[in-house]
Amino acid sequence: MNKRIGERTLYFPSRPSVHGFYSVVGEKESQGPLKDWFDLSIGEGHFGEDSWEKAESKLMETAALGAINRAGLTPEQIQCFLGGDLLNQCISANYASRSLQIPFLGLYGACSTMAESLIAGSVFVDGSFGDYALCATSSHFCSAERQFRFPLEYGGQRPPTAQWTVTGSGACVLSSQGNGPSITHATIGKVVDAGITDLNNMGAAMAPAACDTLITFFKDTKTAPKDYDMIFTGDLGEIGKKLLHQLLQDQNFGAVDNLEDCGCLIFDNETQDTHAGGSGCGCSASVLNSYILKKMQKKELKKILFMATGALMSPTISMQGESIPGIAHLIQLEN
Amino acid sequence: MNKRIGERTLYFPSRPSVHGFYSVVGEKESQGPLKDWFDLSIGEGHFGEDSWEKAESKLMETAALGAINRAGLTPEQIQCFLGGDLLNQCISANYASRSLQIPFLGLYGACSTMAESLIAGSVFVDGSFGDYALCATSSHFCSAERQFRFPLEYGGQRPPTAQWTVTGSGACVLSSQGNGPSITHATIGKVVDAGITDLNNMGAAMAPAACDTLITFFKDTKTAPKDYDMIFTGDLGEIGKKLLHQLLQDQNFGAVDNLEDCGCLIFDNETQDTHAGGSGCGCSASVLNSYILKKMQKKELKKILFMATGALMSPTISMQGESIPGIAHLIQLEN
Repeated sequence: MNKRIGERTLYFPSRPSVHGFYSVVGEKESQGPLKDWFDLSIGEGHFGEDSWEKAESKLMETAALGAINRAGLTPEQIQCFLGGDLLNQCISANYASRSLQIPFLGLYGACSTMAESLIAGSVFVDGSFGDYALCATSSHFCSAERQFRFPLEYGGQRPPTAQWTVTGSGACVLSSQGNGPSITHATIGKVVDAGITDLNNMGAAMAPAACDTLITFFKDTKTAPKDYDMIFTGDLGEIGKKLLHQLLQDQNFGAVDNLEDCGCLIFDNETQDTHAGGSGCGCSASVLNSYILKKMQKKELKKILFMATGALMSPTISMQGESIPGIAHLIQLEN
Repeated sequence: MNKRIGERTLYFPSRPSVHGFYSVVGEKESQGPLKDWFDLSIGEGHFGEDSWEKAESKLMETAALGAINRAGLTPEQIQCFLGGDLLNQCISANYASRSLQIPFLGLYGACSTMAESLIAGSVFVDGSFGDYALCATSSHFCSAERQFRFPLEYGGQRPPTAQWTVTGSGACVLSSQGNGPSITHATIGKVVDAGITDLNNMGAAMAPAACDTLITFFKDTKTAPKDYDMIFTGDLGEIGKKLLHQLLQDQNFGAVDNLEDCGCLIFDNETQDTHAGGSGCGCSASVLNSYILKKMQKKELKKILFMATGALMSPTISMQGESIPGIAHLIQLEN
């Protein structure tokens, strides 16, 4: 049996189900519009650790254990952990794996990692390689700023196009059994590079990839935006979301009113001074594993698309003059 | 149907087959003991590019296109590219993907990435999500040294425990059809941390993880080292290999005479001054996709284990005093 339709959309006959999910966020996120949806706020960003990186790894470990616990399981019962993060060498995921002791496949998809892990996890459980797969990712404002831009102590100015990396982590356990929200389809992204070289304009670097994956999915599944209750993009932010709307209009998709972006949902720019909105793998991961999945559990959303977008940017190669490639991975979730 | 045996070994009923493979190496590697086995030597390390990172990405792209060509395919016919590398944000794989335009799932497993990509690729094709999956990884001595240790211009002394990062890439195309060497089983590694903090002693950081995965595989499959023509470890180097032999003896496995390490095979330390041997994802990738698979094609090897080992080291967290976690992923290949 071939589990593909169209050019590059996968479908999962066993409908891998979200068995348990959990979100952990930082102080700023816990004061934003979604404050009542998250499971845990860590308050000040150190989370009891002596470095931002160790704090971020603890964020992921906490989210993972929360999701496993909600699924009524123990780490020993999970056959594979598929996860990654933004830090060089995926520090957060590696050290979380050291504690969790679950067989581990490390992923790197920049901010697209939550959707990438859900695709890889669905492939794993739908293929009968395990009863349960753990999918998780994280980001931290302070570790990301110093790695990708400047250390916070430098006090660099953030331009209006800049996004605010979310301090947070989201995790969920997928199972081929169960009656939680189910992953029915997925489209793996291709790398799309629109020639953006500005490290402070991730939205513009990611929007073309988002458009490519979304339109491919619609063509492959012979569906249209109106067939879904909501379409959630990962962390395009205000600028990227506007660009995606424009690109979809250029491709004759008209106004897509039911498209919202996790980076726009998580902060209130009026009061929180986040410029173009939230970003980081932890952005779409924490919004999916709280607001979106809880709305699905309450049957307020029945059929949605979740597309996390990643700017595959590297300061090293950017300084060598290269542009920033984007990628977007998509899953369809249904009650 | 459950495709697991024992604690955490997967098996692949469709026996994903290596449909085409290709290896590209640098000048030093092309002068070593395996010089007659590689497909292409790039000579001087720039490979016509103006930076080591761009050269490394071109290495991976070249190996990928070589493997696709050997498989008698074009990139459009491949449903998924599963790959990664050592560079921050996986520069090589991201930019190779931009050229190849194959749906891309980025992986990070440090030097274990070749085996990780083969496991993920086997799960993908065995699960009927694609006819063909591309698996590839790369490393480059010059880009790795400046990222993980010191820029070459600094002229740092290399201690005797240091390994020499291989400049090279290996790629292969997996298919659920075909009669090439087949992947029958795989064991996904857990993170094992023996407390090593020396960034110049990767072998010691990886050997305990290698021992853990190998012994788990033997228990799960009820087999022993003698059941295999050869067991190839990824890049433990001289020190790591010696430690693995010792650890296996401590676990009552006796002398495992048919265990060899890609990092020990690729260089001649007597004449090439590589200290503890070769390392980097490109080490096991280029040795597998030349020497090992060609020996299998010639029926000189019929049933082997390939276990790539990774030191999940990050200079950032190492400077914060953390130890270096290790991981090892294993596949069984049969004619």
